[in-house]
Amino acid sequence: MAKPLNIGMIGYGFMGRTHSNAYRNVNNFFDCQYHPVLKACCGRHEEKVQAFAERWGYESYETDWRKLVARSDIDVIDIGTPNNTHQEIAIAAAEAGKMVLCEKPLAMNVAEGEAMCAAVEKAGVANMVWFNYRRVPAIALAKQLVDEGRIGRPYHYRATYLQDWTIAEDVPQGGAALWRLDAKAAGSGVTGNLLAHSIDSAEWLNGPIARVNAYTETFVKQRQHQETGQLEPVEIDDACMFLAVFQNGSMGTFESTRYARGRKNYNTLELNGEAGSVFFDLEDPHRLQYFQYADPKTGNKVESHITGWGSIHVTNAEHPYMDHWWVPGCTIGYEHTFINALADFLEGLETGQPVQPDFRCALRTQKVCDAVLESARCGQWVEL
Amino acid sequence: MAKPLNIGMIGYGFMGRTHSNAYRNVNNFFDCQYHPVLKACCGRHEEKVQAFAERWGYESYETDWRKLVARSDIDVIDIGTPNNTHQEIAIAAAEAGKMVLCEKPLAMNVAEGEAMCAAVEKAGVANMVWFNYRRVPAIALAKQLVDEGRIGRPYHYRATYLQDWTIAEDVPQGGAALWRLDAKAAGSGVTGNLLAHSIDSAEWLNGPIARVNAYTETFVKQRQHQETGQLEPVEIDDACMFLAVFQNGSMGTFESTRYARGRKNYNTLELNGEAGSVFFDLEDPHRLQYFQYADPKTGNKVESHITGWGSIHVTNAEHPYMDHWWVPGCTIGYEHTFINALADFLEGLETGQPVQPDFRCALRTQKVCDAVLESARCGQWVEL
Amino acid sequence: MAKPLNIGMIGYGFMGRTHSNAYRNVNNFFDCQYHPVLKACCGRHEEKVQAFAERWGYESYETDWRKLVARSDIDVIDIGTPNNTHQEIAIAAAEAGKMVLCEKPLAMNVAEGEAMCAAVEKAGVANMVWFNYRRVPAIALAKQLVDEGRIGRPYHYRATYLQDWTIAEDVPQGGAALWRLDAKAAGSGVTGNLLAHSIDSAEWLNGPIARVNAYTETFVKQRQHQETGQLEPVEIDDACMFLAVFQNGSMGTFESTRYARGRKNYNTLELNGEAGSVFFDLEDPHRLQYFQYADPKTGNKVESHITGWGSIHVTNAEHPYMDHWWVPGCTIGYEHTFINALADFLEGLETGQPVQPDFRCALRTQKVCDAVLESARCGQWVEL
Amino acid sequence: MAKPLNIGMIGYGFMGRTHSNAYRNVNNFFDCQYHPVLKACCGRHEEKVQAFAERWGYESYETDWRKLVARSDIDVIDIGTPNNTHQEIAIAAAEAGKMVLCEKPLAMNVAEGEAMCAAVEKAGVANMVWFNYRRVPAIALAKQLVDEGRIGRPYHYRATYLQDWTIAEDVPQGGAALWRLDAKAAGSGVTGNLLAHSIDSAEWLNGPIARVNAYTETFVKQRQHQETGQLEPVEIDDACMFLAVFQNGSMGTFESTRYARGRKNYNTLELNGEAGSVFFDLEDPHRLQYFQYADPKTGNKVESHITGWGSIHVTNAEHPYMDHWWVPGCTIGYEHTFINALADFLEGLETGQPVQPDFRCALRTQKVCDAVLESARCGQWVEL
Repeated sequence: MAKPLNIGMIGYGFMGRTHSNAYRNVNNFFDCQYHPVLKACCGRHEEKVQAFAERWGYESYETDWRKLVARSDIDVIDIGTPNNTHQEIAIAAAEAGKMVLCEKPLAMNVAEGEAMCAAVEKAGVANMVWFNYRRVPAIALAKQLVDEGRIGRPYHYRATYLQDWTIAEDVPQGGAALWRLDAKAAGSGVTGNLLAHSIDSAEWLNGPIARVNAYTETFVKQRQHQETGQLEPVEIDDACMFLAVFQNGSMGTFESTRYARGRKNYNTLELNGEAGSVFFDLEDPHRLQYFQYADPKTGNKVESHITGWGSIHVTNAEHPYMDHWWVPGCTIGYEHTFINALADFLEGLETGQPVQPDFRCALRTQKVCDAVLESARCGQWVEL
Repeated sequence: MAKPLNIGMIGYGFMGRTHSNAYRNVNNFFDCQYHPVLKACCGRHEEKVQAFAERWGYESYETDWRKLVARSDIDVIDIGTPNNTHQEIAIAAAEAGKMVLCEKPLAMNVAEGEAMCAAVEKAGVANMVWFNYRRVPAIALAKQLVDEGRIGRPYHYRATYLQDWTIAEDVPQGGAALWRLDAKAAGSGVTGNLLAHSIDSAEWLNGPIARVNAYTETFVKQRQHQETGQLEPVEIDDACMFLAVFQNGSMGTFESTRYARGRKNYNTLELNGEAGSVFFDLEDPHRLQYFQYADPKTGNKVESHITGWGSIHVTNAEHPYMDHWWVPGCTIGYEHTFINALADFLEGLETGQPVQPDFRCALRTQKVCDAVLESARCGQWVEL
Repeated sequence: MAKPLNIGMIGYGFMGRTHSNAYRNVNNFFDCQYHPVLKACCGRHEEKVQAFAERWGYESYETDWRKLVARSDIDVIDIGTPNNTHQEIAIAAAEAGKMVLCEKPLAMNVAEGEAMCAAVEKAGVANMVWFNYRRVPAIALAKQLVDEGRIGRPYHYRATYLQDWTIAEDVPQGGAALWRLDAKAAGSGVTGNLLAHSIDSAEWLNGPIARVNAYTETFVKQRQHQETGQLEPVEIDDACMFLAVFQNGSMGTFESTRYARGRKNYNTLELNGEAGSVFFDLEDPHRLQYFQYADPKTGNKVESHITGWGSIHVTNAEHPYMDHWWVPGCTIGYEHTFINALADFLEGLETGQPVQPDFRCALRTQKVCDAVLESARCGQWVEL
Repeated sequence: MAKPLNIGMIGYGFMGRTHSNAYRNVNNFFDCQYHPVLKACCGRHEEKVQAFAERWGYESYETDWRKLVARSDIDVIDIGTPNNTHQEIAIAAAEAGKMVLCEKPLAMNVAEGEAMCAAVEKAGVANMVWFNYRRVPAIALAKQLVDEGRIGRPYHYRATYLQDWTIAEDVPQGGAALWRLDAKAAGSGVTGNLLAHSIDSAEWLNGPIARVNAYTETFVKQRQHQETGQLEPVEIDDACMFLAVFQNGSMGTFESTRYARGRKNYNTLELNGEAGSVFFDLEDPHRLQYFQYADPKTGNKVESHITGWGSIHVTNAEHPYMDHWWVPGCTIGYEHTFINALADFLEGLETGQPVQPDFRCALRTQKVCDAVLESARCGQWVEL
């Protein structure tokens, strides 16, 4: 029997859309006991939130998130608002006994994140942070290969997350659409927005980072504020690069920017180990590159004349999540990472096995982000 | 104001799923006047069709398509059943005044297709065949480049549609899941199933084919029938290759098979012209390769030292359909080609401009398929 | 002890250069008993042949090939002249007891080729045709994989050889540089020039072709002759495509053109079999794509979640020829295929094991070319 | 008239071979006044150096480099020996009035390099360091695109040089073949051997580096010495990664290792600027990836729907060096970078325009290498 799960979605921007789409579609593809119900969405501009509710089929809407949190017909509060609002909403929701789903990054900083963890853990409510890229089937497959021993002793990890959409100096900052460029709303620039993804993936695949050494840059020093029309200093990091050492002794390089002309969504990761390597690029999300040097079951080396980077088209029924979708050879897209994540969350509710990354797990990424920004400020290695 | 459009979906297999998904999602992404309503689905096995109705949210179901066609609350009959049923259903639906959407290929042969065209045209009902790959943004972009004069005088067209899922001799034929291997249900093998796509794309991009010379093969001569358990002769074409000459004088090669080990959904097309070339591969559906030799506006050649095949990541807002989806750099998947097609159909209803390919247009592809099979039988060039 | 092998090179164009380069370098990389000595080169224009001799270090030159053939200090006659001269020179050289190396295609047609085979066989002289692409390490590796049973039962072969350098109508025909566009000198167009390579590779990898069905086209109908300045009809095939059936029952598609905008030297081959597939593209000559489905030693299937096309960087010491060159990861280029071929020829002299393809073997390719051209003329399948 | 240039080659290992090959071939492809003559080679093991002389056609050999330097029939001393010998030989050669060519890296450290620069400059002799990768046509094309203004204001530079050949713990260190693993002979590990290339390319393309922050690691702590058989500590850096800031304000990441499983010779570089980007990978050396955003002549943006990374097959006659080689579409290999470099050196002798990088220029790379190693030691940013 289907159990309804009443959703209260806060925020109707880009992430409001991806989450709503997940709620609407998950049960068509995954056999979950829990069936999300689009109970209410919430946003400050009534006209816009009403239009959003109509488009996505929400039964009602609110313009004050506190009212939403207070509603007894809501089971889950989903936070898709700018970063500077996460803490307050999440804590209120937890205190109201709601499950809490939160967009990444978890918070503005570690202190906020700690408070949020404390709140959900005290309340004992299910919680998850939407690090959706763990649910790209190819990245999940990379994790599976790691767990199968196919990488072996790790030596190197490298990650980039490159975009190019803020090169033009006339891109404004702030406002509803461009709060990601406004340090007051976003906390940081590419570090919290993009590197948080890279760090989450890295620690999932290769374990904890032990220390970092970072450098950040703001290429465009001032931009017009979208709402005030004033030219204001840009306070976010336009670009960030850092060296890392993992606890397992492997070395890592990380870089993110919105100034890499030609790179649209170039979220790449590579892990090199004694037995094999993997490479992934989000611009070709349905492929995983895998270099097999040795077979973990037999320990035998692949014959030298046939070694090569294999391009795995991650659309077989045996691949993570793919048995829920179409037929082998048919790709899924960006939005499906949210549906897959939601399915995992719903399954976690059934099994009682909390889905990862929960707030506590995401706090770890927050710590690395904070360490990165601190290192960039002080020019020193920072330990974690 | 939204105008409801009541859908009667016949068939609940692979295509039943892709179409239902399109109906459920189109209005979240496209601002169409018409809003499909999942009124009823239809299939012969009551238990299965009921489960399908529940999963996808159909208001009702039928086990006899004639009843569905007779229902006054149905506006559109969508045919997602095996090929040998298309004609009868489509004609009945048209005679009942329903709009008719039909999976490809249109029919078992040209004679059936002619009758179907006559029926929908006599009834004056909107109709479309789901050649969904025209709605892959990258293929639509290829069409745009052709229309912009970026290819210029065409010399060569080449298409392959390669898969590998029937190599094992123990894959059975027939039954609900594997009717595509049963000549009685499918009419032909790869020709109608896969080459129909290639031909539709080819004529859309490069105009009518004038004559063909084909060869077909059936590698596995007998397979167990899934329902009877009997070993029966395989009567479909496992593989088909043909030469073509287009009316515009360009040359074409076409090949399809389900025996190309390692090719999952390798639907490729390439068009070479005096001013430029394009290449597409459905296994990387979000990319279009474009070689620009000359600029159609100025006629100037690109400087020789920078010419090269450009890999266009077809996810910019300026690309076909993509402004309806997410943000630049975010890919869509296989299923979205159906949603895009449906959006075009709904827009056609609004504007009164019939969407293509309609039955008459798809009949053309049927003619080429028939000519291909005839050529394979007689070993001669066949004129169209 | 090094045994000198006195070379008489006829022709100083493109192939004169590649062969001369091979003679000059082979002993630096291969430990062959035989050491080619650049004894004499030959060409009709004294000034040019003298300059060529100086540049490449030939000890002498001739302007009449009959004189060269008559010289007692010449061991090997190497024919790098237009196709319409091969027969006469080769037969004279064989009759003079010289070893004969000949550029491909062997001859203008099968009748000429038969006479050439008869001559070298009667004379008992070593002979080879320079189908240099067999000596691309990646293609040689493909052959090795076939021989190791890694492809298994073959289903499909497909080959293209695409270029784009004759699209412009003002490219002249004829003369020293452009005799390949002159049917009187070349015999045919892309069929003899490019498809001969594709056919040689195909039969080497996949066995004899049983029958073909072809179509040719000449897009530019007349071109200025380079020497006369007159506009003359173009009599070569600008493009040729054909279907093939191999004796082993597998199907083949072949296509060649000089009108595929953006394709420079796009000589590709793909072989799909039950156990695996290979793909090669001469524009990336140091890579072989290999899809492994099953291991020929154990018969075990590769686990489904890690199957993929592997890109083998064919630069390991274990790869064909590569232990003679640099270190793993360092590529070789186009010219090395000639050096590798020459090394094989020299080794054949040592071992007495005739190197392939010799004239008899190359005659086979000639037969297929003739059948292709005949099929194109008559529009019918032609048996071999 | 050809002017002979008498070469005295010291070292007969990997680099002895590549240089000798360049001397033997350069005049067949480049019309240089100067013609290198293989006068003498030099090495300590008489048997080996004699064999080397025979194989490559040196007229004589020496076993003491001082004797070679003292010979009056030598014009050029070419140093292809381990790094710890460069200084002494180069200074002696300069003092003897010889031109000096030296393998990279220039020296063991900046102090040595300074002395070497002083020596050649005082002697006024032509000098060059073999940073051969500047002569990869694709990298030279990247430089040309920079100079044409196609990159515009630079934001990011990233370089990797990844190999995997020292992962196995039983690879020995030291001796003739493996001196690169011996800190006493090599000075450093990947920093001097591989990153020196990356740094030379980076500063050539993007100007001087202002400061660096580095980390190095030695994964295998002890290895058997090839000559002594003793297990000895490994003192080189197995891997090195560093952050850089260029004087022009752009950011750089650099990484090199011999522990990146599956990467054979993965020397990549990417430069992102406002107007465009380039990417290069030495494993596909004949291609340059170029993303054109704006045209430097007109300043116009490329139309958004056709932007993409273009893969330039750097084999056109218009591409750097390529008019000297074969025909468009035919690739050259690793060894040709040395021939191209030598041709530039010879041309510099003709024109009196010193070829780059000369010793002074290469000293700059040495400075960056030293700064990188110092930063790795102290864990701080180091200014240049």
